[in-house]
Amino acid sequence: MDVSANKRDRGEAYVVGVDFGTLSARALVVRVSDGAEAGTAVSEYAHGVIDRELGGRELPPDWALQDPGDYTEALGVVVPAAIRDAGIDPGQVIGVATDFTASTCMPVLATGTPLCQLPDLAGRPHAYPKLWKHHAAQPQADRINAAAHERHEKWIKRYGGKISSEWQFAKALQVLDEDPEIYQRADRWIEAADWIIWQLCGNETRNACTAGYKGIFQDGQYPSPDYLAALDPRFASFVADKLAHPISPLGGLAGRLTPAAAAACGLTDGIAVAVGNVDAHVTVPAAGPIAPGKMVAIMGTSTCHMVNGTGLAEVPGMCGVVDGGIVAGLWGYEAGQSGVGDIFAWFARNGVPGQFADEARRRGESLPELLDQTAAAQPVGAHGLIALDWENGNRSVLVDAGLSGVIVGLTLATTAPEIYRALLEATAFGTRLIIETFRDAGVPVTELVVAGGLIKSAAVMQIYADVLRRPLSVIGSEQGPALGSAIHAAVAAGAYPDVPLAASAMGRVNRDVYRPDAARADVYDDLYAEYVRLHDYFGRGANEVMYRLRAIRDRALGGGSR
Amino acid sequence: MDVSANKRDRGEAYVVGVDFGTLSARALVVRVSDGAEAGTAVSEYAHGVIDRELGGRELPPDWALQDPGDYTEALGVVVPAAIRDAGIDPGQVIGVATDFTASTCMPVLATGTPLCQLPDLAGRPHAYPKLWKHHAAQPQADRINAAAHERHEKWIKRYGGKISSEWQFAKALQVLDEDPEIYQRADRWIEAADWIIWQLCGNETRNACTAGYKGIFQDGQYPSPDYLAALDPRFASFVADKLAHPISPLGGLAGRLTPAAAAACGLTDGIAVAVGNVDAHVTVPAAGPIAPGKMVAIMGTSTCHMVNGTGLAEVPGMCGVVDGGIVAGLWGYEAGQSGVGDIFAWFARNGVPGQFADEARRRGESLPELLDQTAAAQPVGAHGLIALDWENGNRSVLVDAGLSGVIVGLTLATTAPEIYRALLEATAFGTRLIIETFRDAGVPVTELVVAGGLIKSAAVMQIYADVLRRPLSVIGSEQGPALGSAIHAAVAAGAYPDVPLAASAMGRVNRDVYRPDAARADVYDDLYAEYVRLHDYFGRGANEVMYRLRAIRDRALGGGSR
Repeated sequence: MDVSANKRDRGEAYVVGVDFGTLSARALVVRVSDGAEAGTAVSEYAHGVIDRELGGRELPPDWALQDPGDYTEALGVVVPAAIRDAGIDPGQVIGVATDFTASTCMPVLATGTPLCQLPDLAGRPHAYPKLWKHHAAQPQADRINAAAHERHEKWIKRYGGKISSEWQFAKALQVLDEDPEIYQRADRWIEAADWIIWQLCGNETRNACTAGYKGIFQDGQYPSPDYLAALDPRFASFVADKLAHPISPLGGLAGRLTPAAAAACGLTDGIAVAVGNVDAHVTVPAAGPIAPGKMVAIMGTSTCHMVNGTGLAEVPGMCGVVDGGIVAGLWGYEAGQSGVGDIFAWFARNGVPGQFADEARRRGESLPELLDQTAAAQPVGAHGLIALDWENGNRSVLVDAGLSGVIVGLTLATTAPEIYRALLEATAFGTRLIIETFRDAGVPVTELVVAGGLIKSAAVMQIYADVLRRPLSVIGSEQGPALGSAIHAAVAAGAYPDVPLAASAMGRVNRDVYRPDAARADVYDDLYAEYVRLHDYFGRGANEVMYRLRAIRDRALGGGSR
Repeated sequence: MDVSANKRDRGEAYVVGVDFGTLSARALVVRVSDGAEAGTAVSEYAHGVIDRELGGRELPPDWALQDPGDYTEALGVVVPAAIRDAGIDPGQVIGVATDFTASTCMPVLATGTPLCQLPDLAGRPHAYPKLWKHHAAQPQADRINAAAHERHEKWIKRYGGKISSEWQFAKALQVLDEDPEIYQRADRWIEAADWIIWQLCGNETRNACTAGYKGIFQDGQYPSPDYLAALDPRFASFVADKLAHPISPLGGLAGRLTPAAAAACGLTDGIAVAVGNVDAHVTVPAAGPIAPGKMVAIMGTSTCHMVNGTGLAEVPGMCGVVDGGIVAGLWGYEAGQSGVGDIFAWFARNGVPGQFADEARRRGESLPELLDQTAAAQPVGAHGLIALDWENGNRSVLVDAGLSGVIVGLTLATTAPEIYRALLEATAFGTRLIIETFRDAGVPVTELVVAGGLIKSAAVMQIYADVLRRPLSVIGSEQGPALGSAIHAAVAAGAYPDVPLAASAMGRVNRDVYRPDAARADVYDDLYAEYVRLHDYFGRGANEVMYRLRAIRDRALGGGSR
């Protein structure tokens, strides 16, 4: 098939990006020439997040599964719908790419069939994909980390010293521990990000992003059999048996759309299918030109900070650094804040008296909108408060889920909107600390682009600009991940020679939308100094009150964790 | 007049106690033989607290004045009304006594006429009584403290190292600084507690309680002229000119009710008028037998802790120790928490989402009642929180109004009732720290009786019993101060030889109403250890973040204090 033959120029070619989120999938039809978004469609997964029961049996706490049938089903809905929405001929589509939550991983047969789709295993929880927020593999993660530090595995420093319970190895080890038969029957252990590509093009691939950030693939290899044996002798061949496969660069061609997948999606068979990717990482090219030092912060319920560097550095508390992890040819650094929009939403639900909700209703606004406006109207520092943004723990730079939130400076005159603003600011201080930690480790951040749901809040954006004392650029798309996927599809289809060139043509950024005010930034310098002092006091061992409070809480609740 | 002549026995004699509060006065008619409360009446002051404007002119921030005409007017209302309510013959009343807020002090002529009642001074703010919570004399208090420490005045240690801006000297010095003509024209500078007695019996007296706790009268003398001259040369003769007067013991006879006062109050002239007293201190005998080591905690918007000792000790951070300051013959110790019920009310107003108010309405309860019940239902420590109770500063043991509130341990699962409970507990930890500080300084607390508005909350009471790991006795009267005044009236009238004997007969206490639970107390020991660690970190100079936050706030608000 030669798309350009029956179209006048490249401007008429389109690509489809599909973003697989936690609860739904979204397809975006994008013009190859300039990234214009022509059409979109979204579909919720039939089974959503499976975290309470499976086949009538209750799941333990902290479990979160999904049904892989939902992924393929959604694909068959959203792609044709987005094409219709765009009003283009499906024959104009020259490539398709996807991004996924991660690490969402599962056991499959050598054919790619998920074990949970085998009739005799349908009721077995460990046969299902473990969603990124499945947190029941913490004991396995603890073993993984202890052994790594004991053996001085050099890769552990690439992950801020800690492998997450959310990642591939901890989840696979949990299967081995708790349902060895499932472990045994799994020919492959694969990210959903790669599995969905397998469904599209018929080839197993492993993308550089999930392999690096979630699969401990560093310097061309996975953890050694010796190390794995130290976790469990039966685990020694985990890599060789279930993971090992050539790693594909992002934007690479995974294969061609199979006739079956083409029929399901309403596309032409044989078009390019790009290598899989992750929702946060794929957003970077959607935010315009790629450059070392340009950080893209995807701010939503939590925040991911993605930045490319020209070399390898060990940044304390980063989530990971991966060669080609964001874009081939550069070292991709990832950091994160585990609670951002989640904290604001928690406070709006739990800490704001009724008169504000009433007032918001009168004005026809949401409560967060009203709080944002009330917060924005306060002079910087007038609330006399400082908060630590650890209500959901700290991902970077302390990498400590056992920490918790703090508010200092309360008086009998303190109001809920003042506390709300202090919480907004606390997350901005957290971002500043991450950026300064990168800088101090030799990875300077020279430009900051924000993406994600929180870009809708001008109050939050201005606070960040002032706290960071730097202009904030804003991604020019409301569908950052899907646009990023579409960019990768264009590269895989050969429309651009590489992702950076495609990003320059198809990505969109509005530069310097929010500019810092020097006077406000001066006050924030003082408040940030207080934040750092409290951060270090509570977070670096001077007073381990937060762990002790959790222990007291767990004993009070009967020994379980909550 | 011989009351006992026309009555069969002492059981038929009555006394009247009048409690002058911040907004109203209350009279209580009490049977002398057993303290039975026969009748009561209350009346609000016509001018209340004058803190916004006076005669059409705006008052500066932190000012709080009163109109002394309100005091005498209220007296003429509540005493006759209480007598009517009791259904007794006014001739049965053998004595009257009063208690007052303190330090509420004013400039008067040698005749006792308040300067604000002179026609040519009616519009002059400094001619009016400065209510206890007038806080505009802080600069003067700062000078008083600095000079005291510089000169090593030995009395400063009797006040926890700090003279309050609320007390006599700071307020008088403010008058001298800001309106020297008023200062000049004041023949006397007197507590309202003593001024009201002057109106009743025609004699100027000075009671041991306000002289000691509010007037720096120690070891038989006031601060020296040399010291006063160091504050301002014109202030050198302040004591000699405006304060000096023999000090009267509590329960002593100030004089006899004048015919004019008797007519105004509907009482018999010539009956005993007791020496003045202070609302908190006078409550101690109302709570039953007097004994060294028995602490009476008057818990309301703030808490006063009163305890008698047999000797003099210097307790860090106490408000004051005064020989005969609570009862003649013992050293009276006072400590305090500047925010208790005020903190709970602040949080109920500012930190609780609407659904709880809705739920309270459905149940026909107040929001604090609902929060109390919800708090009481939580297992100790299940909220995972620890708070510092400094939203209104810390009176004891840190004596620092610049401190502020802290909450540690917040998570995305934390709810408003959990924070509410943590605040209740924080005030209980504050009380425990005060009691332990007394113990460590050689003033053991062997018994604890609670009084004040918070005794209505069983949740608060049980938390205190558990945190303190000791039984809580509860005062047996809802009118502690007025009953305490009545007891002093009975002593002044000669019905009892001294206050302790009168207190045993007329005071009332319900013993051990709340008993500690050992398991809960064990958890509280752990939480209290965390409280102390944070208390010392934020309160003893390791991190002066709270002062800096206040300074940032004041700059943000334009340099003023708030």
